[in-house]
Amino acid sequence: MNSYTITTTLAHPYDVAVEMVREALSEQGFGILTEIDLKATLKTKLDVDVAPQVILGACRPALAYEALTAEPSIAAVLPCNVVVRALDETTTLVEAFDPEAMMGLADNDALSTVAADAKQRLTAALTSLDSPEGDN
Amino acid sequence: MNSYTITTTLAHPYDVAVEMVREALSEQGFGILTEIDLKATLKTKLDVDVAPQVILGACRPALAYEALTAEPSIAAVLPCNVVVRALDETTTLVEAFDPEAMMGLADNDALSTVAADAKQRLTAALTSLDSPEGDN
Repeated sequence: MNSYTITTTLAHPYDVAVEMVREALSEQGFGILTEIDLKATLKTKLDVDVAPQVILGACRPALAYEALTAEPSIAAVLPCNVVVRALDETTTLVEAFDPEAMMGLADNDALSTVAADAKQRLTAALTSLDSPEGDN
Repeated sequence: MNSYTITTTLAHPYDVAVEMVREALSEQGFGILTEIDLKATLKTKLDVDVAPQVILGACRPALAYEALTAEPSIAAVLPCNVVVRALDETTTLVEAFDPEAMMGLADNDALSTVAADAKQRLTAALTSLDSPEGDN
């Protein structure tokens, strides 16, 4: 593992998992501002095959605004990426960029509260996917 | 300044600068996969006013593929964000997420070459904006 993401593994096929992640993020107040189908993009541009995966650009506007107010440059690491990637036919990995890794880059105390809040909400979203209520 | 972005300041109005940045990135082989009008988004969602600014999600597919091959989790920090932000009516800041800051997070030697290549190309794009050829 690494130190810059928060992850969870779901015993669901990729397509189901993507919809579950969308719902879980929405429940925590994150809208999806951007969406990159990495498999399709790399197939089109390079004709190479990677596992089915999507990068969802999640943004909770109030947190983004707080972060920007504390440090305008933080826009360079927004929105918060949540990657959903197929591991096999029935297992899917969810991997979110850890807002506290972002804060480590910034070294700005005013961002601490915002980053901690964002991390708590992302963690809650990922945790909800593991619970029975997270299932469809 | 901070340690996680590469920046340049342009003596051009925001709208002109945005087009210049698009061209400069394209000349370095970066496509724009995502685009967030941060001012419009925050106005719509929160009714707050920030400076005109856009987050361009730049991706050079060959580099993205190399990075993913070296470390699949790196998808969580892709694409490479380039933020264009109005400082005043005639001055615009261009601020790109430094791929070597990303590499610092990852702590994976196999990413070094990729990150250095990405940084060189982004720096070339930003530097070209300062040159006479960068002007419209």
